[in-house]
Amino acid sequence: MSQTIYRNGEYVPEEQAGISPFDRGLLYGDGLFETLRCYDGKFFRLDRHIERLRSGLKRLEIPLALDEQGFAGVLRELAKQNNVASGVARIVVTRGVAEFGLLGKHAQEPMVLVTCWAQAMPDIKRYETGIHCIVANERLSSAAHGLKSLNYIAQILARREANAANADDAVLLDSHGHVAEGSAGNVFLVRDRELVTPALQPEILAGITRATVLEIARADKLPTVERSVHQNDLFHADEVFLTSSVAEIMPVTRIGSHWVHLGQPGPVTREMIRAYRALVLREAK
Amino acid sequence: MSQTIYRNGEYVPEEQAGISPFDRGLLYGDGLFETLRCYDGKFFRLDRHIERLRSGLKRLEIPLALDEQGFAGVLRELAKQNNVASGVARIVVTRGVAEFGLLGKHAQEPMVLVTCWAQAMPDIKRYETGIHCIVANERLSSAAHGLKSLNYIAQILARREANAANADDAVLLDSHGHVAEGSAGNVFLVRDRELVTPALQPEILAGITRATVLEIARADKLPTVERSVHQNDLFHADEVFLTSSVAEIMPVTRIGSHWVHLGQPGPVTREMIRAYRALVLREAK
Repeated sequence: MSQTIYRNGEYVPEEQAGISPFDRGLLYGDGLFETLRCYDGKFFRLDRHIERLRSGLKRLEIPLALDEQGFAGVLRELAKQNNVASGVARIVVTRGVAEFGLLGKHAQEPMVLVTCWAQAMPDIKRYETGIHCIVANERLSSAAHGLKSLNYIAQILARREANAANADDAVLLDSHGHVAEGSAGNVFLVRDRELVTPALQPEILAGITRATVLEIARADKLPTVERSVHQNDLFHADEVFLTSSVAEIMPVTRIGSHWVHLGQPGPVTREMIRAYRALVLREAK
Repeated sequence: MSQTIYRNGEYVPEEQAGISPFDRGLLYGDGLFETLRCYDGKFFRLDRHIERLRSGLKRLEIPLALDEQGFAGVLRELAKQNNVASGVARIVVTRGVAEFGLLGKHAQEPMVLVTCWAQAMPDIKRYETGIHCIVANERLSSAAHGLKSLNYIAQILARREANAANADDAVLLDSHGHVAEGSAGNVFLVRDRELVTPALQPEILAGITRATVLEIARADKLPTVERSVHQNDLFHADEVFLTSSVAEIMPVTRIGSHWVHLGQPGPVTREMIRAYRALVLREAK
């Protein structure tokens, strides 16, 4: 069924929301995005997503006409028009159409595209059994420092590597060989009830779910450490999980041929899943 | 004026060539492109461009319906319909629309988009005076090894750095600090009449113009070396130039605050410019 899409101030049916073939988002990945989960028509911590988007666009010198309240209105309207209860929303902002060349001179209006569609949570079994990850050969680059840009080819290749190995997802290392991210989220490990995640660096996206997990852990008096994480740390961890707005907290119970926590989600991961959901139910709006 | 565009088998006016807001080229940069210069309605070494495109798409497992002859027909038709004598053509192939998620499962038809528009060569003065480059802080990543993908955010940021420094272009280093590429082309330097360019590695695109310059040099009995190039090599070079299909061979006469060849294009660069043009006139079809 056709869905309604928001594009630069208008709500239009999908088929009529065609993007210019000269849009720089398509030509060069010259734009940013945010992905949010929709909970019964509501959204969790939209303010953080818009804050990250604004700060990234500032670096790219792409102006943004809509503020948080504006986006909140658009998301609510799309959820309503598309009958979305459980779903996913995506905000894309590109430099739009500009003069030929990388600089993007004389850019016309930036393109603001918002979509929201019904999309169930990943199968509950995956949270109960955990997923199988590989450590990808593909490395994550520090290019475009921490921008959530439309440039996902490394992550796509990593994910395809995982698929070819019959795994569910991939962990990417940075150019120094340290653990950077999952293909679509941040990585955490638990060791002696301490929560460890790679420290924010150019290669590492300041995930909204990552920050929320750290916040929950600190409130729970669980020690947290943000530091450089070696590949071997994953193999020696008591528990491993991935975080993202779309999949929330996903236990990883196997990395390559190595079982984590005997192939079962561990107690800290389970507690995080529970606490995150509870927070979402309290705060989503 | 509106131009005609080729999209998946059809010639359509620009305004009607809207791309799906769910096309993975836009969402993730999940696609490749080629840029060619149009010479009096003709193209130079299209076969090499299509060969590179095909081999990259194979790695991404994106099928390509058109062969070299097919693309040649499309390019000629667009040049004719859009009245292009001197111009630029761009071929974009994306995975098209697929299921939500990085893997791109159940992808529908790939999107093949070809555009060709009138675009004069860069101002002749630039070839006579040479351009001013900076060495960008932004690093080029080895992600997506040598694919000419739609992921150009690092190059865009480097180019914007150059612009902020009142320079014309930027040279990017790889993650090890070695010279990789210009923002839109390969880098060559001349030292004691020897032509040096970074050896092909994950960070370095196998440029068609790069290969052509090496071929011309070898035919001219000029020694050529493909090796790792240090930033300092640029400062100690007799001559420096950039190569790309769009700008051909562009002399670099200043790098940061350092003048190259007293701020004038050197004799080897001039000879390369001349020989490249002569080859294009002979071979373009």
